[in-house]
Amino acid sequence: MFAAVPGPSPVVDAGSLLHGLRDGVPRTRAELSRAIGMSRSTITGWIDQLMDAGLVAPFGDAASTGGRPSSQFAFRPGAYVVLAADLGASHIRLAVTDLAGGVLAEQREEIDIATGPEVVLAALERIGGELLHEAGRGHADLVGVGIGVPGPVEFATGQPVNPPIMPGWDRFDIKAHVASAFDVPVVVDNDVNVMALGERTIAWPEVEDLLFVKVATGIGAGIIAGGDLRRGASGAAGDIGHAPLSRRSDVLCACGNRGCLEAVASGRAIAAELRHHGIGATGSREVVELVKSANVDAIQAVRQAGRDIGEILTLCVTLLNPAVIVIGGSMAQVAEHLVAGVREVVYARSIPLSTEHLTIAPARTSDDAAIAGASRLATDAALSPSRLGALLMRR
Amino acid sequence: MFAAVPGPSPVVDAGSLLHGLRDGVPRTRAELSRAIGMSRSTITGWIDQLMDAGLVAPFGDAASTGGRPSSQFAFRPGAYVVLAADLGASHIRLAVTDLAGGVLAEQREEIDIATGPEVVLAALERIGGELLHEAGRGHADLVGVGIGVPGPVEFATGQPVNPPIMPGWDRFDIKAHVASAFDVPVVVDNDVNVMALGERTIAWPEVEDLLFVKVATGIGAGIIAGGDLRRGASGAAGDIGHAPLSRRSDVLCACGNRGCLEAVASGRAIAAELRHHGIGATGSREVVELVKSANVDAIQAVRQAGRDIGEILTLCVTLLNPAVIVIGGSMAQVAEHLVAGVREVVYARSIPLSTEHLTIAPARTSDDAAIAGASRLATDAALSPSRLGALLMRR
Repeated sequence: MFAAVPGPSPVVDAGSLLHGLRDGVPRTRAELSRAIGMSRSTITGWIDQLMDAGLVAPFGDAASTGGRPSSQFAFRPGAYVVLAADLGASHIRLAVTDLAGGVLAEQREEIDIATGPEVVLAALERIGGELLHEAGRGHADLVGVGIGVPGPVEFATGQPVNPPIMPGWDRFDIKAHVASAFDVPVVVDNDVNVMALGERTIAWPEVEDLLFVKVATGIGAGIIAGGDLRRGASGAAGDIGHAPLSRRSDVLCACGNRGCLEAVASGRAIAAELRHHGIGATGSREVVELVKSANVDAIQAVRQAGRDIGEILTLCVTLLNPAVIVIGGSMAQVAEHLVAGVREVVYARSIPLSTEHLTIAPARTSDDAAIAGASRLATDAALSPSRLGALLMRR
Repeated sequence: MFAAVPGPSPVVDAGSLLHGLRDGVPRTRAELSRAIGMSRSTITGWIDQLMDAGLVAPFGDAASTGGRPSSQFAFRPGAYVVLAADLGASHIRLAVTDLAGGVLAEQREEIDIATGPEVVLAALERIGGELLHEAGRGHADLVGVGIGVPGPVEFATGQPVNPPIMPGWDRFDIKAHVASAFDVPVVVDNDVNVMALGERTIAWPEVEDLLFVKVATGIGAGIIAGGDLRRGASGAAGDIGHAPLSRRSDVLCACGNRGCLEAVASGRAIAAELRHHGIGATGSREVVELVKSANVDAIQAVRQAGRDIGEILTLCVTLLNPAVIVIGGSMAQVAEHLVAGVREVVYARSIPLSTEHLTIAPARTSDDAAIAGASRLATDAALSPSRLGALLMRR
């Protein structure tokens, strides 16, 4: 059972202290001592070490009067930076952020993920270097890289596994490639998990059980249960795009099965449905535009997609009993119709105890969720007990 | 963020030490020091305190030669006892166990849960006292009570919430009633969660992601994800009995909805189906007997129930990506037919990454899962950092 105990204990203590301060609230030694249950002298020792490392600073000196030394301490998110990357099907978006997710420099470039890992990761590493320079920070300030990719990832190794829209990336060692460029820990996860983490960090920090559903060209979910992302045994948890809607077994999915949610209710599927009705739409973007211009067929199709997604989400609610379901992804631009369809089905079909306190809402973060989540993944890794020791030695 | 840091830190350290030793493997101070990252002298201090409390003992003295003092230490599960209770629709089963779940005394009594909490809990408290006496242990040795009940429970308060087969128990304060009798912490959870914990503790201790499915008069699931039971926002997680099978919307469920899994594939539903074919069966027990006597209709009905359950489990696999699905409950006595139906559907319909390493197996614990789980719940609570301090002061 010792596997559950992470890293050397003294660093665990510093980690608890730092983790507690990451909410940004300044605290006195006495408050910290009470919160963590360490003695005042132990707290003082760790505060000194964390201050030496630049991770913690005295707070409110400016406001203090009469030269009395500051008694409050606060997390210093600017101590180091991380690189947050969002790889999409046809773009790469990168940001240098501080340790609280604050964006210091950002860039977006069109690049086809199908050009393969060597080309795309070379671009990532080049842009990353440029952004560090733009932010006025050196390689020595960088403590981690977080990357979201549009496909299934084996989280332990960070390798994509049979990613459908990422030809050439299967089992590619992204971590090793990027770590060799920046010499810091690299964390890779699928884009939906990263967005779930970003949305939760920014918009729902107090919620322990949240389901983030991305509705775009594809459909997927990220599960936060008991306060943490749950990736399952192989990292495949949340892949509801291929959950079967038995009522729609007439529809063939690209995966080879029939009636998959993604084949029925994704942006691409809605566009195909509209083409059936003689309306020119090739993907999510056109569907969103049609809905915004009040096209009745498009509105009805999106509402029906919401109901179909709601059918699968009903079982998710029954199974996971989340407090919040967030609908995100590019189709969330017309979230009112999508959410209405989802609510219609979920509230009608779920047991009362599961929906009594359930919130179903559009994502609040839009495009920022991916960068915020990737920044959080990288920061959590950099400040984890097993890494914090190295940070404390650095300065 | 300080809420995540449990209890006073020195006790957290002793808790880590004790938690690590609960696997039963004896270890030297040096091994413990390496595993937890505490200094040898800190370890020695805690070992002394845990030995004073009787929770840890020197190991292997008998084998040592030449009077050299023992250098290994092991957890002493017999230091204290807990009371584990399994309340069913028509029975109550109780055991006094040690802190490793070893049963010291056990009793089962027929009692209708519908007689209400006052009668049933009075029986529980009386039998509990008798079993402590029978095990030769006093009230001072008792450190916790764990109780599984056949209905939904709000875990934080331990109160049943609208439990369908427990009239008179809605919002009853079981914890307070039992705590006033025994003066120790009481933990209450629904029977399926308790069985999931028991099955995992006994049969799959290394598995972090496990789904336990109880198929009996009703159907429900217990979810272990990332190594812990996940109860969701209101304690309703895992209630798959009321997940809808849209194909079977002709069947009315007692909950008021249509096509619920439980209305189609539970022991009671299979018996009703068989009665349609002129075969006398009133519930799970008769169905099991018919299958064991090779009745073809019963075998086919159970197989079909397995397929229906498999349809819902396909989505559970897609969503949670468990490493193991265990089929338990009274219908698991004919598990070969049930599991065959489940496998047929789950392997056909899931994405490859989710099922590549998936095991679908009958429960290994049968009737013992509930007692093992209740014992584990009580022990985990008694040895949690917030309680361990009190235990260390007791002796």
